[in-house]
Parts: sequence; C-alpha cells; structure tokens
Amino acid sequence: MTRKIEIVEVGPRDGLQNDPAMMSTDTKIEFVERLIAAGVRRMEAASFVHPKLVPAMADSDDVMQRVPRQDGVKYIGLALNERGMRRALEAGCDEVNYVMVASPGFGLKNQNATPDETADLFDRIAILAHDEGVPVSVTVSVAFGDPFDGEVDPAVVAQLAGRARAAGAVEFAMGDTIGVADPWKVRKTLDLVRAQSGDMRLRMHFHNTRNTAMANIYAAVEAGVDVIDASVGGIGGCPFAPAATGNVATEDVVYMLERGGFDTGLDLGKLIETAKWLETDGLKHPVDSALSRAGAFPAPAR
Amino acid sequence: MTRKIEIVEVGPRDGLQNDPAMMSTDTKIEFVERLIAAGVRRMEAASFVHPKLVPAMADSDDVMQRVPRQDGVKYIGLALNERGMRRALEAGCDEVNYVMVASPGFGLKNQNATPDETADLFDRIAILAHDEGVPVSVTVSVAFGDPFDGEVDPAVVAQLAGRARAAGAVEFAMGDTIGVADPWKVRKTLDLVRAQSGDMRLRMHFHNTRNTAMANIYAAVEAGVDVIDASVGGIGGCPFAPAATGNVATEDVVYMLERGGFDTGLDLGKLIETAKWLETDGLKHPVDSALSRAGAFPAPAR
Repeated sequence: MTRKIEIVEVGPRDGLQNDPAMMSTDTKIEFVERLIAAGVRRMEAASFVHPKLVPAMADSDDVMQRVPRQDGVKYIGLALNERGMRRALEAGCDEVNYVMVASPGFGLKNQNATPDETADLFDRIAILAHDEGVPVSVTVSVAFGDPFDGEVDPAVVAQLAGRARAAGAVEFAMGDTIGVADPWKVRKTLDLVRAQSGDMRLRMHFHNTRNTAMANIYAAVEAGVDVIDASVGGIGGCPFAPAATGNVATEDVVYMLERGGFDTGLDLGKLIETAKWLETDGLKHPVDSALSRAGAFPAPAR
Repeated sequence: MTRKIEIVEVGPRDGLQNDPAMMSTDTKIEFVERLIAAGVRRMEAASFVHPKLVPAMADSDDVMQRVPRQDGVKYIGLALNERGMRRALEAGCDEVNYVMVASPGFGLKNQNATPDETADLFDRIAILAHDEGVPVSVTVSVAFGDPFDGEVDPAVVAQLAGRARAAGAVEFAMGDTIGVADPWKVRKTLDLVRAQSGDMRLRMHFHNTRNTAMANIYAAVEAGVDVIDASVGGIGGCPFAPAATGNVATEDVVYMLERGGFDTGLDLGKLIETAKWLETDGLKHPVDSALSRAGAFPAPAR
C-alpha cells in the first residue's frame, strides 16, 4: 500500500509574514483557493500575533472569515500567547499552532522567553484550546541551530517534546528556522524525541537556506515521519538570513516524494502554476523553487 | 575514526564546458590553483573532444601543460573516443574518464551511440590507457532518467557497471545528467550496481536541477559510496534545461558532509571565496550555491 505523506502548506502564513509584497486579503483568499485546487487539505493561514510586530498578518481575523470551508480543509492559526490563543479560537481556526524555542539566544530575541518559559506558557494556554475542543500543535523553533547560540542539543528538543505531549499537543514540529540542519542531526534528534513523544505526531519544518532541506526531509521520512511543512515557491525567508532561501518549496518536496512512491495528494502541475502565479500576480517578485524553473519529469522533451 | 568522503571537483571541466563566459586559459589556471588551495586533490580539468563541439575546452592540451603538479593533485581528462583517449594520454592526464550512456535517446543525440555501443567502444579504448598504466574511470550519463526516453531502468546501469569493470575501469560514476533522480531510486540503482561492480569504486554525479542532489548524496553516502562529484558555485548546467541549476555545489556538499561528521579535506571558507571569485572575476556572472549566499554555520551572529 502506498504510504501517505501529509504536506502542511505554510505559504499563506509563514510564507507571507515577512514578504515585502504585503499581499492583500483578497489575494490571500485567491492564494488559499489555488492551494485547495492543488490538493492542499491542511495549511497555515493566519497568525494572531500583534499586528505591529507582523503587519502582513494584521488581517488574519478577516482571512479566517473568508477562507472556503470545504473538502475537509483544515486551517491552522499561529498563537504565541494567551491573547493570540483566544483570538485564534474566536476566529474559528481548526487548529492552533504554538511556538516553543529550543535555545535562549533566539528565544529571548524573538519571543522574549527561554525554552522553559515557552513550555511553561504552553501549559497555561493549551488549556484554552482543550476547553474548546480545538487541537493544538507545537513547533519548536531553531531546533537544529540558533543564530546566536550556535548548535542546539537534541536533548533539549526531546525535553520540549515531552512538555508538549504532557500539555496535550497533538503534534510536535521540529523547525530548522535558520536552515542549518543536516540529515544526520535530524536522525539523532528524531531518535531522542521519539523517546518522549508517545503517540503525539511528529512533523518537520525545514528551510533550504543551506541546501539541506530535501536531504533532511528524506532522512525524516525514512525515519518514519509522515508530516512535512513546505511553502509553494519556497516563499518565506528568515530575517536573519535575508539573502538566503527560506522554506523548502512544496513543489520540490512533492516531486521527490511522489517519485519515491509516496502519496502526497497534491497536484505537482497546479503547485507549479501557483508558484508562477505568485511571481506574476500574487507577490509580483521571483520565487525560489527548482521545479517551477526546471519542470517535472518525465516531461515531453520532443 | 572519521570516514573520509572524496569530492571530485568537476568545475574546471564539466562546470566550464557550456559556460557562455569562455574562461581564458590563464584564468582556468588561476581557478585550478584556487581549488588546490581549498584542498582539492582530484579534479576534472580537461576534455579531449572535438574543439568545434566544445569550444570552451579547446585549450585542454595547454591547460594540462600548465596546471601545477604538486601535493598529490590528480587531474582527470575526459575522452569519448580513441582520438580523445590518445590526446588525453599524451597531455599527461593522471586519469582518463570515459562516458557511457544509460539510454539511447540521449546517447544517440549526444554521442551518436546506444548504451551497448558506448560500452563496446570503451572495451577498445580502455586498452590504450592500460598500456600506459593510466587509470580509467567511467561515468554513465542519464543514469536516472533521459530527457527523451524518460525513466531509465537501474538494471541497464548495473549492466554497464559490469561492462566497465570487465574492461578494467577503476571507478564507475553514475551521472544524473538532467537532475531527475530521487534518493529511493539512487538506493535501488546502487543495490543493483553493487552486484556487478566488484572492487571497482563507485562515484555519484548529481545535478541539483530539481533540488534533489543533496538528498541523493545523503542516500549514496549512507549506502557506502565514498566519492562524490561537485562543482564550486554549482557551475555547469545542462543544455537541455538552460534555466535550471546544474551541478550540485561543492561548498553545499562540504557543508552537509562535514556537519555530518565526515572528512572531505576541503576548506569551506576557501570554497566560498572561490565561488565569489567566479562571480566577480572568473566568470563575471552569478553562480548558484546556497553556502555562498547564506554563509557557514555556526557563524558569528553577534
């Protein structure tokens, strides 16, 4: 039987939050509709952080009101504190994602919190989602390396996985926020995390900043991970590496996995069309994916 | 003990042969010197094909006369026929590389030969190198997919490996000429090739056209392959995919492997400097590598 790999599309949230194009709400809805047409059934669509910090996500309530509710599509909203969690729940998100940090350097700069403090806060606000019956997931940022502190100890990530599970997270995502992971460290981290994760699902979030995202995904899939984050066109960079590639591109991941015999449920041609639409209409600037440049294979060459 | 992975630098040959910049002989020598300073000890430096077909390699005899002979550096010359083989041997190449094709579509267009015919020709011309005591290696092109014929059967690659071994090749390289391979097919191909390769070394040549090269390298290294082709700056595209990335970049491969605990003997900082020198002086156009954009990690971020 064909193994299914779920790709969580993060383009409409992680992909857009730092993009200089400041996509309009109307265009975001069109983006979401294009993604659904390409087969996406789970996506990050909104972020309930302070609009002064992330102006591109200021319309998240409005976006959540207008996204199509069909075909079993699930929308994930991001929340980093109690106020965000309440807003995400009120906005009707199907799932709320919370971010822990794996290292204090990045944590203090980005969320003004140490790893333990981000786990403590999750204990308190996860309850709000539980009360509403809404699933919560956790992403741990800088899980493989911190731009200020350097290497991250996989044992810390595993400890956070234990905390996330204890607080009732349904899923735990390891985020390579600055794109430094290698597949050997991915495996080592997964080995340690599994000892703490029980039946909590595992998910991987890789940036291709140093061209290792696809190798990391391959390593994770071989290690049994069934859920992978990606963004169409690879949109969404890291402010700490402005010249570099950000999220791994959905179409690249789909190409590799489908060729490897996995079922992603996504339509490669429509993903490539969506990447091209981002360039011409959605964002009006180039995006970075290999498949949108090279095209699929086998392709008619004669 | 740290496992060594040998990276064969293909920039001065595969990287330059189709580059519009037409690098001068003087600049080629500087390129080679920079590579040696970065730790490169084995590289493709010359191609003995007809100068009308590959004008950028017309100075190969001159290049081989002028390259520094030091520090155990080995230079590989490419030859596709008897005349090329004689020229490569006369020019003093330390090793000659011959190209078989895995599929007739590409083979007939590129070398006017079917897979079997390329193996037959190797039988005849390998003897010339054996007579001189010069090692010969074989690269099989389009080993994972052909732009005209589509999928390539790994059994064909394995059969060619058997032919290469029988004719005395010391090494057999599998080339993903158009950048379509995925790591699962790499593993399957390696499994079949190993049944035919005996003590002949195996080497992989990946293009990053569809962003799978690093995953393919990871799969190959995990499967026991110790020799990987790469080009600084990822130079060297495929004429069949002009808009797309070509060879996987040496600095990206070194970053991943050294982080994974392998010893490549290469200096990442000097490789990145060389990629930047290609942009400003060597080729005077942008090159495509993640590490030259993003920088190494850990990097001082404060």
